[in-house]
Amino acid sequence: MSVITFLDYFGVFVFAMSGVLAASEKQLDLFGGFIIAFVTALGGGTLRDLFLNIDISWIIDTTYIYTVIAGTAFALLFKKIAKHIRKTVYLFDSIGIGLFTILGVQKALALDVPIIVVIMFGVITATFGGVIRDILCNEIPLIFRKEIYATACIVGASIYVGLDYYGLNEITNIIISGSIILLIRIVAVVKKLSMPLINDRI
Amino acid sequence: MSVITFLDYFGVFVFAMSGVLAASEKQLDLFGGFIIAFVTALGGGTLRDLFLNIDISWIIDTTYIYTVIAGTAFALLFKKIAKHIRKTVYLFDSIGIGLFTILGVQKALALDVPIIVVIMFGVITATFGGVIRDILCNEIPLIFRKEIYATACIVGASIYVGLDYYGLNEITNIIISGSIILLIRIVAVVKKLSMPLINDRI
Amino acid sequence: MSVITFLDYFGVFVFAMSGVLAASEKQLDLFGGFIIAFVTALGGGTLRDLFLNIDISWIIDTTYIYTVIAGTAFALLFKKIAKHIRKTVYLFDSIGIGLFTILGVQKALALDVPIIVVIMFGVITATFGGVIRDILCNEIPLIFRKEIYATACIVGASIYVGLDYYGLNEITNIIISGSIILLIRIVAVVKKLSMPLINDRI
Repeated sequence: MSVITFLDYFGVFVFAMSGVLAASEKQLDLFGGFIIAFVTALGGGTLRDLFLNIDISWIIDTTYIYTVIAGTAFALLFKKIAKHIRKTVYLFDSIGIGLFTILGVQKALALDVPIIVVIMFGVITATFGGVIRDILCNEIPLIFRKEIYATACIVGASIYVGLDYYGLNEITNIIISGSIILLIRIVAVVKKLSMPLINDRI
Repeated sequence: MSVITFLDYFGVFVFAMSGVLAASEKQLDLFGGFIIAFVTALGGGTLRDLFLNIDISWIIDTTYIYTVIAGTAFALLFKKIAKHIRKTVYLFDSIGIGLFTILGVQKALALDVPIIVVIMFGVITATFGGVIRDILCNEIPLIFRKEIYATACIVGASIYVGLDYYGLNEITNIIISGSIILLIRIVAVVKKLSMPLINDRI
Repeated sequence: MSVITFLDYFGVFVFAMSGVLAASEKQLDLFGGFIIAFVTALGGGTLRDLFLNIDISWIIDTTYIYTVIAGTAFALLFKKIAKHIRKTVYLFDSIGIGLFTILGVQKALALDVPIIVVIMFGVITATFGGVIRDILCNEIPLIFRKEIYATACIVGASIYVGLDYYGLNEITNIIISGSIILLIRIVAVVKKLSMPLINDRI
């Protein structure tokens, strides 16, 4: 298993855990919790695969499904630890986002679609799992309202595409682009930055 | 028309009826009612076909569409009878679920995907119509919160796959697996069983 | 660029603008506003392309994406003008609907699917962008509850299919069918017509 594959599974595990914890605030049962974990972790990638008309990753590679089950079980069995991890180490989540962005960009790059579409698929892969989770939980998606989140993905995806165009090798590119996404997230959280609202008052 | 096909249309009719009755509590108009009936009856199968990248059943066979129209019309014209059927004979609904689970499993089995994916597609076919209905009606999906429902599908789908592996003929397998789903549902409703919640208190 | 293509982009621009203005009532940020604009303008067509298993229009032709960006920017920069346009000239929206209906019908006709499916895809293309927008904004979809909207699309789509069957040339057919959709919308708005509700009282 390559480092990238390992990090991918790790991201799925963390997102699944984070999904279950979100679900636990909504009085869902075990099945509901698993579905929320599943869509949080794999919903963005599923949407990307549907749009790009390629085989859906978790149908081809069931390790994704088992990783979601493992993440769900871990979060339920060790709820206190999981909550602690989630609240204090938001870094995990941001690593996941960075990674998912780049994995989405790579899948789209391989298909020879226009650059703006490549960047969009990076963002979709990283953020639309959370969007579907929020819809299922009957909330307006968090990333439409708060925090620098999608913006970090857009910047990171653009840098990856640019460096790839100039022939930078994959691993170095992942480290640079991923770190930038992570850095933007850290600065945004520490400085409490957020995107301007498009509110109604004129 | 084979018995299986007839039962499939029957399931679509019952689910459509059940969808309209759910919609009637939400002050929807005729168009909204039809759409809710449609997604309740055919949403799970549509999602399955999209994920498996096969032709969508109601595009190939328009009998599905006409059956939804018939179920919608019946529920609106004979609202009292329809409500009576729905409230007292929840059995119809459970027969539909059992059947849809097995039809989903069969479609996935034909495509040579991993076993866990086959079982998931049984559950998706049977339950995600209701999930999309609840999302459109601005509710947290019922099956994420209440009753033994998805669990019955998981058990029934697993048994079907197992018996199919050991070479049991189709009809017998459908009767056995479908009956088990039905039985679990009946016991769950009579005994008011439900899945444990994953609530927040520690 | 043909007149039809121009009108298509124009429809996307108007729907994007309308989406952003809807989003601005929900305290969304810039990213959320763009996503809402995007799904309002291109969500119906995306669903149609997924269901018909054809390439998604905005992946093939990125002009759609840039048109959404332009519509979003226009609505935010000239909010007062955009609001004025939206409130007083609901005609723009209705022109968009008429056009999207016919474009959806044309795409489905080209694929040799049954007539009822062709009409459904006209309606889906024109209305499901708004449905997805409402779901993301945590509302029950407006067109399930109010106004003659989908009905106009159904009538217009049916007329287009009928006239096409009898060999009427494309441009004349678009003008006739599109005008009928527009006319139904105008009459419905002026006369405050709406579809009957399927409410609960018996």
